[in-house]
Amino acid sequence: MNTNNRKVVLVGTGFVGMSYAYAMLNQNTCDELVLVDIDKKRAEGEAMDLNHGLAFSGSHMKIYAGSYEDCTDANIMVISAGVAQKPGETRLDLLQRNTAVFKSIVEPVVASGFSGIFLIATNPVDIMAHITLTLSGFPSQRVIGTGTALDTARLRYMLGEYFHVDPRNVHAYVMGEHGDSEFVPWSQALVATKPVLDLCSEAGGKFSCDGMTKIGDEVKNAAQKIIEAKKSTYYGIGMAMVRITKAILSNENSVLTVSTLLRGEYGCDNVYAGVPSIVNQNGIESVITLSLTDEELKKFQDSCNILKNAYSGIQFN
Amino acid sequence: MNTNNRKVVLVGTGFVGMSYAYAMLNQNTCDELVLVDIDKKRAEGEAMDLNHGLAFSGSHMKIYAGSYEDCTDANIMVISAGVAQKPGETRLDLLQRNTAVFKSIVEPVVASGFSGIFLIATNPVDIMAHITLTLSGFPSQRVIGTGTALDTARLRYMLGEYFHVDPRNVHAYVMGEHGDSEFVPWSQALVATKPVLDLCSEAGGKFSCDGMTKIGDEVKNAAQKIIEAKKSTYYGIGMAMVRITKAILSNENSVLTVSTLLRGEYGCDNVYAGVPSIVNQNGIESVITLSLTDEELKKFQDSCNILKNAYSGIQFN
Amino acid sequence: MNTNNRKVVLVGTGFVGMSYAYAMLNQNTCDELVLVDIDKKRAEGEAMDLNHGLAFSGSHMKIYAGSYEDCTDANIMVISAGVAQKPGETRLDLLQRNTAVFKSIVEPVVASGFSGIFLIATNPVDIMAHITLTLSGFPSQRVIGTGTALDTARLRYMLGEYFHVDPRNVHAYVMGEHGDSEFVPWSQALVATKPVLDLCSEAGGKFSCDGMTKIGDEVKNAAQKIIEAKKSTYYGIGMAMVRITKAILSNENSVLTVSTLLRGEYGCDNVYAGVPSIVNQNGIESVITLSLTDEELKKFQDSCNILKNAYSGIQFN
Amino acid sequence: MNTNNRKVVLVGTGFVGMSYAYAMLNQNTCDELVLVDIDKKRAEGEAMDLNHGLAFSGSHMKIYAGSYEDCTDANIMVISAGVAQKPGETRLDLLQRNTAVFKSIVEPVVASGFSGIFLIATNPVDIMAHITLTLSGFPSQRVIGTGTALDTARLRYMLGEYFHVDPRNVHAYVMGEHGDSEFVPWSQALVATKPVLDLCSEAGGKFSCDGMTKIGDEVKNAAQKIIEAKKSTYYGIGMAMVRITKAILSNENSVLTVSTLLRGEYGCDNVYAGVPSIVNQNGIESVITLSLTDEELKKFQDSCNILKNAYSGIQFN
Repeated sequence: MNTNNRKVVLVGTGFVGMSYAYAMLNQNTCDELVLVDIDKKRAEGEAMDLNHGLAFSGSHMKIYAGSYEDCTDANIMVISAGVAQKPGETRLDLLQRNTAVFKSIVEPVVASGFSGIFLIATNPVDIMAHITLTLSGFPSQRVIGTGTALDTARLRYMLGEYFHVDPRNVHAYVMGEHGDSEFVPWSQALVATKPVLDLCSEAGGKFSCDGMTKIGDEVKNAAQKIIEAKKSTYYGIGMAMVRITKAILSNENSVLTVSTLLRGEYGCDNVYAGVPSIVNQNGIESVITLSLTDEELKKFQDSCNILKNAYSGIQFN
Repeated sequence: MNTNNRKVVLVGTGFVGMSYAYAMLNQNTCDELVLVDIDKKRAEGEAMDLNHGLAFSGSHMKIYAGSYEDCTDANIMVISAGVAQKPGETRLDLLQRNTAVFKSIVEPVVASGFSGIFLIATNPVDIMAHITLTLSGFPSQRVIGTGTALDTARLRYMLGEYFHVDPRNVHAYVMGEHGDSEFVPWSQALVATKPVLDLCSEAGGKFSCDGMTKIGDEVKNAAQKIIEAKKSTYYGIGMAMVRITKAILSNENSVLTVSTLLRGEYGCDNVYAGVPSIVNQNGIESVITLSLTDEELKKFQDSCNILKNAYSGIQFN
Repeated sequence: MNTNNRKVVLVGTGFVGMSYAYAMLNQNTCDELVLVDIDKKRAEGEAMDLNHGLAFSGSHMKIYAGSYEDCTDANIMVISAGVAQKPGETRLDLLQRNTAVFKSIVEPVVASGFSGIFLIATNPVDIMAHITLTLSGFPSQRVIGTGTALDTARLRYMLGEYFHVDPRNVHAYVMGEHGDSEFVPWSQALVATKPVLDLCSEAGGKFSCDGMTKIGDEVKNAAQKIIEAKKSTYYGIGMAMVRITKAILSNENSVLTVSTLLRGEYGCDNVYAGVPSIVNQNGIESVITLSLTDEELKKFQDSCNILKNAYSGIQFN
Repeated sequence: MNTNNRKVVLVGTGFVGMSYAYAMLNQNTCDELVLVDIDKKRAEGEAMDLNHGLAFSGSHMKIYAGSYEDCTDANIMVISAGVAQKPGETRLDLLQRNTAVFKSIVEPVVASGFSGIFLIATNPVDIMAHITLTLSGFPSQRVIGTGTALDTARLRYMLGEYFHVDPRNVHAYVMGEHGDSEFVPWSQALVATKPVLDLCSEAGGKFSCDGMTKIGDEVKNAAQKIIEAKKSTYYGIGMAMVRITKAILSNENSVLTVSTLLRGEYGCDNVYAGVPSIVNQNGIESVITLSLTDEELKKFQDSCNILKNAYSGIQFN
């Protein structure tokens, strides 16, 4: 008989991690959810708060505060832990400190015999995913960053509003770094199977390319706007992480713009960046190589170079 | 044709309110969700954060920051707004300040022509629900406090763990004030249709009345324990609020221990307290009067007296 | 306050209609579902059978056997009623008899004051939708046939299997008559945003255009194969009808290949055929005009001509 | 890593089996569903019909026609196969023929190495479950009949209608044979935690014990009434089977009135009958022994005697 227990371990019970955990409970996405935090009491309090909601959910998830030993038979290990920037600290110093945090997590996880998939949500997510790859020695297929999955969802939501069409019928991506150098390859943006660029150039049409550019900018600035309003952003990313989790647990072969190690695709090598990828129970099944325009390809490679440089400065000793 | 638009307005986008909103989105419980906060920018940021998750939900909820004018055609008005206790402030002074806050909310809501149901989550919830009744002039049927709904869920979850049975097959209540004077009428606690007290007194049994008493205490102290661990409690109550919302929107006639105005039931009159009530699209359809023991009845009346005294000190103009 | 009661009336409780009703219950898609059949006792038996399942569903749907008077405030009127072909009967004679059946349904529905949307599932569905338009005098926006929605789902499922990708990331359509002259416009078939034709022509690729042609044929012959195995097909179409129902009730603006009245699109006028259309609470919000190749356009027009001829022979009084 | 594949094999693709399969798909209850039938072509047609609906479900279930070899790693083996009564055939002769059918199923299933749980739906379900126990040599914990689970749901639905309360807040059981000798132990029937008998005897009350008796009769006759109207009953039982399946797959410890082997409970031994039982991933975790009145106990024992006699006549040679 199968042991049909879908088990997820979450490390880091800050707002991003807990928004993920709460959405997992509300959507009843797994059978066992383990919360791990260096503040063990915090993890216990969060588990209690979720468990009291459990009685209203109709779900039978087992939720508890645990430790790295619980990773042994887990399917997915989600990491949203990390330290915050100190005043005056450089980006690289912060990265170096977060590398130390990840080391303290990934080493005991690997030691536990964990053979599942790492899903990384800590920012800068492309770099932290790459760091996890290095620290774990796992095949790259099994180390995934949330990448531009949320940015892509934001883009589709906004395009859906603009064109008055269900976002599920909008096909478009945000690619590259989850950050300032990310971009929308408009040549790949479609409503149903109609190119958005055609819709915008229709004579007398109500849609315009200016409208598109504005949406692209809004997507890039969305996180900043939310942060200005409420200090941080966590609900959207929490649901993005659930979406990726489902693709893995249900072996969906879904196309998601997660962060993965490129090996020559789009002319980029040995760098983690957000690209449309097929995600299933093995992690990244394959990367989809879109027919980008030269200009788009240049933007992608520029974005990858920024990520490569950032990663190259990290000391692993 | 029907306008089949299930519309909920939430006032107060703190952690309790937003945990409710996020669970509403994850469970796809209504068609339109309006966020209102005195900090309008905050409400807008929260709406953005939820909307970005929307693209992952398969739901088509309309979520936006709005104002009291949006209440006109709403089905439910949820209030989780309120001010926090200042150092040295008495409980009564705090209540008086929150009365002023509620006045500033309830008056424009009533002025909007709102004809739906108030669901109050601000603590002390029994008092705040009573205040809303007075301020709104609504029939009591349409002013509901979350009461001991969450405490009851906690109780069932813990009894389920203790007896190794699905919490849905545990029937038991926490009654009275949502607070220190709440209590469990053990004469009404059942596993399937077997009284818990019988299970505990079985010779050579593995269950004990001491075990029950301990669970009752843990339920009462659960919120405090979570607050010690994570400063406040919001996920459980968020899901409790969604549960009550569903009972209303789907006209369920469900039995929930919400806070309602008693009119002689259990020998108590003109006081809001948590009692098992039948909840449907009209709000409180009726109060269920359980056959409590004399001791339990006394506890309930004591709890109601505490609530009556607290309410009687409030000034309304 | 809104009356937030999503009400659907189903006429015809054969296997197609009941598979729809059962899926509506299992997916908890509306609040009130009325079953109408000339065999009233049958409708009552079906309502009982569903209601006994209701207790397991967690849903609170009101399901009952009713009459055309129940249409007054319904959102959607689903028709899956019809008579079967007699031995030796011509297709036109059968159509004429089904026109009479529809007359006996549509007239009392219109008389009831129904102001919602007709969803037609009786075959030949394009013709029967057109007949409903004529009989009802409704604007064409509010008379929808299931069209090639199911064929499109079959196509995506098979392409998903072929390319090992989530069918939700396959974008492709079956267009035209729901029947022998339907076709796949391969120029519009995509995996993510990559044209299927490009995937097939990749040198040394594992996918082939022969594979595509075979899948197109299988889609067209799928119903026939199921009918050979189990006499009729109803589960797939039942779920297709639920999908369209959700797009209407939740105002989704979803793109679905339903049957709608063409008014010049694709060079076709005054004929019902399956085309990608935006569906929302108003019914057909708009038809999407894809950039078909000349060959595909010719196939579509040929299909429409067949439908036009079939419709033109019907006598309405 | 876990293999988290919830796998169910269904033998018998008649209307009961397929209503179960269709509900499994609509509720997305497992990951892999295998259809087995002596008419292999039929099973293939049914799998195709379901798979075409899959594209609308958002689920990623693997559904296919298979064979007994697929049972090796299945969690649950559902049997709804059986032959129909021939004109003039005695009940015992029919039982004997169905014993042969079950032999042809259970032997290869056991030979496959299947180590999961048998869920039997073929009528007379108590006898057929007992036969499966004998043929399989499995521990009784892992051989479950659907018993009076559906009858209990019907009872709760009708009591909910009568008392205007959510059926989830009605606690009551139908016990004994799934058939003519089944009965309702009214001493165990509650609304919330109030005995139904108290509600009925309230002076000037709107509820009556006559009303109860009538509901008890209607529950017993419900199947017959549906059969008169639509020849057979399958939707309700299909959803009952899904409910039991969930209790097993999600390890719910839910109380369900399934058919299980009694070992002295209620003074009955070595007979399968419907009793409230705790169901989890091990099958029957335990039988709940309610405090029946003497009269109720007598009815239960009479029902068990009928079942014992029926079973005793079967030849296993």
